This record gives sequence, structure tokens and C-alpha cells, in this order.
Amino acid sequence: MVIGIDMGGTSTKYGLVRDDGSVVARGSIPTGGTLDEYVDLLCRSVSGLVLSNGLKQTDAVGMGCPNGNYHTGCIEHAVNLPWKGVVPIARMVSERIGAPCAITNDANAAALGEMRYGAARGISDFIMVTLGTGVGGGIVTGGRLLYGHDGFAGELGHVIVERNGRLCGCGRRGCLEAYCSATGVSRSARERTGREMTSKQVFQAAVNGEKWAQEIFSQTGALLGRTLADFVAVTSPEAIVIAGGLSRAGELLLQPVRKAMDESLLPMWKGKIRILSSALPSDDAAVLGAASLALEI
Amino acid sequence: MVIGIDMGGTSTKYGLVRDDGSVVARGSIPTGGTLDEYVDLLCRSVSGLVLSNGLKQTDAVGMGCPNGNYHTGCIEHAVNLPWKGVVPIARMVSERIGAPCAITNDANAAALGEMRYGAARGISDFIMVTLGTGVGGGIVTGGRLLYGHDGFAGELGHVIVERNGRLCGCGRRGCLEAYCSATGVSRSARERTGREMTSKQVFQAAVNGEKWAQEIFSQTGALLGRTLADFVAVTSPEAIVIAGGLSRAGELLLQPVRKAMDESLLPMWKGKIRILSSALPSDDAAVLGAASLALEI
Repeated sequence: MVIGIDMGGTSTKYGLVRDDGSVVARGSIPTGGTLDEYVDLLCRSVSGLVLSNGLKQTDAVGMGCPNGNYHTGCIEHAVNLPWKGVVPIARMVSERIGAPCAITNDANAAALGEMRYGAARGISDFIMVTLGTGVGGGIVTGGRLLYGHDGFAGELGHVIVERNGRLCGCGRRGCLEAYCSATGVSRSARERTGREMTSKQVFQAAVNGEKWAQEIFSQTGALLGRTLADFVAVTSPEAIVIAGGLSRAGELLLQPVRKAMDESLLPMWKGKIRILSSALPSDDAAVLGAASLALEI
Repeated sequence: MVIGIDMGGTSTKYGLVRDDGSVVARGSIPTGGTLDEYVDLLCRSVSGLVLSNGLKQTDAVGMGCPNGNYHTGCIEHAVNLPWKGVVPIARMVSERIGAPCAITNDANAAALGEMRYGAARGISDFIMVTLGTGVGGGIVTGGRLLYGHDGFAGELGHVIVERNGRLCGCGRRGCLEAYCSATGVSRSARERTGREMTSKQVFQAAVNGEKWAQEIFSQTGALLGRTLADFVAVTSPEAIVIAGGLSRAGELLLQPVRKAMDESLLPMWKGKIRILSSALPSDDAAVLGAASLALEI
């Protein structure tokens, strides 16, 4: 049994996971306090969970963290965490829990989870795209995550899709993330209607037959689909797995994604690249992803 | 000693290569005739070269071929070769020469050559970009070529850089290849001056101080640089190696490439990704690349 930890900007979830993918027990703590306070609380909570389930020790710990670097075991300059600079989280957790610990970013962890337990079982070459507040990416090639030179490959949300387009949180203009995330959809709605609303409200309006809301989903999907066609030209995957809050819009989003991707693909790939939805329960997906990383140690 | 074969649309070059990268002997034949005639002539010529150099046999054969698929050993639907459909070239050559044969496409072979003998020695994560008649790409990650699901990863020339832009040879619009290749530069010159000229003539005009020609190189370089920044976000390489005929323009092209790439990169990568020119002698580069593939067998 291993531990999977999903560190988010406000809360951290963790779970004790059997290698068949069942989450035996779960817990969560707030992401906050000083770094030492946080790591102490996390490790005591996790160890408590392990003991409560009749185990002396866990075999390994996997963590999905914002800006988590697999190569170094450090969180590096995450903007949405209280601790700045470079945080050697894997070493700290490993020392306190007494088991090896590996980290990576959330989208990479999600890719490992889908490959072991979800939509990408049996698929060795795929691209994971998470559509949440931002857009994350994880690339699997030959059955292994592509980490790149510095551990930060797969920053798919920061590919430029609109020259001089919307300002992105990264300070540049026109990133995929500024359009095809929950935040992007909400912004499209504000530009269109002048009203503040969440992507969920836009989804509801589309389901209720509001034409403007349906158009936002078809335009968002078309932009994502065209961009996915470019990613296919780079890594030639068998499938693309889509997860994250915005993907709950289902076919309203995925149908235009498929259409635009197929129209944009080179002839040799047309009709051959599958777009799949995450096949993990959304509450446990991140923990299962992190646990999958632990199982690779 | 191994054989490296570079199959082009009009001629095929081959060389006997020592593992230190010296090309001991070379030859070439036309790419043409029926497939059987061509393979017979190629294999007899190669075997003759081997025997003439006092060897009984070569250890392995590597080939760079248009649309060469490493996974299957077949050339698949190459548009600029006389043989249509799927050509099992690796098996045919291997049977006739009596040594194992592996194939891949030209840009992938170039990447292997740069990694073993050229600008990418000691670099495990890099992107190879070949700027010739078209634009080719080869992606090396963790010291290995990224082939993707079907063997055709790295089609970097067919990433869309201009929505509804120039018509590309692939039938779609706005591909990188339609702008940042020798053909693309020649087309930019025609659009600008109304005259037909080669990319070499445009280069000469730029060197002679013609402003329009200098602008074509700075615009071509800027477009390439912006696009490379997107590739960096996908695979996070340590360096990008640029080769091919158009790259002989040197700093006239590379200076705007570096500037635009650095301006477009995410902050964490600014100033960190090196743009390198091929460090292989241009006459032997393709044969050395193919020989590097043979050395991996």
C-alpha cells in the first residue's frame, strides 16, 4: 500500500491506496502555516492514517504539487502556495515519514493515474490535458512521463494560441490557458454578456438552451481542438485524455474539440487520434495519480 | 564499421563510417527505377564499398528516408519518392546486405547524428530542426528519440503558425514549413518583390545590404523563434539544434530566432535554452546521422 498526496493551493488531500487502485482511507488538511508546520501536520496525519489501517509503515509516498519537479524533489517557485522559492518537499516528507517520496506536478500525476487505473490503461503514448482553473499537461511517451531537461515539460497551458491575445497569469499574452480553462470560459462569458459568472453557470446556461453559452463552448472547444492537432504533430500520441473541472461539460465541449482537431490534423492522423475523458472518479483522481507515482518508486 | 544511407528524392548517398565518426568511404546512386532495381543497385554499391575497404561485412545499416518509420522499417506514403504506398525498405536492404537495418526519417537521423558527433554531444534533451526545402523535426528526450505511437512524432514543420495562412504542400494552411523553410523564404521574396528567386539569392541580397531581404530573414527568424518557444513549453529541452540549407544564413537568421524565442518563453525558461547550429560537416551530416542509427542497433 502506498500514500498519494494531492497538494492544492488551499487544501491538501491524501489517501492510502492499494495497488489495485482502491482508496482504502482518505484525509485532508489545509495548505498553509509555515512550511515546517505544514509538513509536520501532513506527515503526522498520513502516519496516523497508515497506523489506523493496521499497517506499520507505508511503502512509498507520491505527491502531486504545483510546480513539483520530479528530478529535484522540490517545488520550484509556485505562485499559488504560501512558501516562496525552492521547497525541498520530497526530502522533508521522506525523512519524517520514513519512506521514499517522489513528487511531480498535478497534470503529470493525473497522467500516471489515467495510465494505471483510468482512460489510458494499455496506452503507452498519450497526452493528458487538465482543464481546471488553469490548463495543465502531461505527456506520456513509450509508457513513461516526458519530464524534459529541467523536469517541467508539458506546460501545454502556456502554448500561445492567439498572438497578442488575452493577458495570461504568466504575464504573457494569448496562452491556451487564458481561453480553454474554467477561468477562460468565465472570461469569455463576461466579454460576451458583461456579467460575472462561473464556467459552471455558463455550462448551465448552455444546457438550458442559451445560444451565447453554447457558442462559448463550441468556440472554446474549437480552439482547444486546433491546438491539440499541433500537439499531435509534436509527440504523435495514440490518444488525448481530458480531465479537470471544465471537462465535466462533457460532449458540449468534447464534440467541438474532436471536430476541430480532426479538421486540423495532417491527413495521416485524421480520424486516428482518440479524445478520451478521464475514467477516474473525480474526487479520487488526484490522489490516485500521486499514488501511481509512488508505485513507480 | 557501419553503413549510413541518406535517401533523398533525387539521389541516395551512403558512407562507410567508423564509430569515431570518420567517414571512411562514400558513394551515391540516383533514387529511381523500380523499387527492386533501386534496392539491388543500392545494396550492390554498398557491399562493393565494404569489400573495397578490406571488410567482409558491415555490422549494421542505418537509413534516413522520407517518411521512414522506425517502428515498422517501412517508408510510408512518401510524396517525393517514385514508389507509392508502404515500402518495406529495411527488410529488403537487410536481406540483401546480410546485416541488420534500421530506418527513420531524415530529421530524426540528423538528431541522432548531432547527439553522437555534433552540436548535441552530451545533451540528452534537445530538439532538432532542419530547415531545408521543408522543415523537419526530431525530438530527443532522456537521450532517446521520441518516435510516438506510430513512429511519426516530431512533425514540427506542420505545426500551424498562421491561422488561414499560406497553403502548405500538405494541403493545409499556415504550417511552419510554408514560412520558415528555403521554399518559404523564396516565397516571401516573391510576395515582396514580385520576382522568382532562391533563398540563397535572398541571403546574398541581405548580405549586400538590401533592406527587403534583411527584413525577410528577420521576420522568418522571428516567426521561427516564437514557434520554438511553444515547442520548449511542450518538451522542455536544454537546447535546440538548427541545421539544413537555410541555416547556412547563420546569424542573419539565428539572431532574430534567439531574440523572438527569448521574448516569447515563459519566465522560467528565458535565457536558458540554447540555440545551436549543426556542428557536422554539411556534406556528411545526413550519412553520419544514418550511421548513428546503425550504431544503436
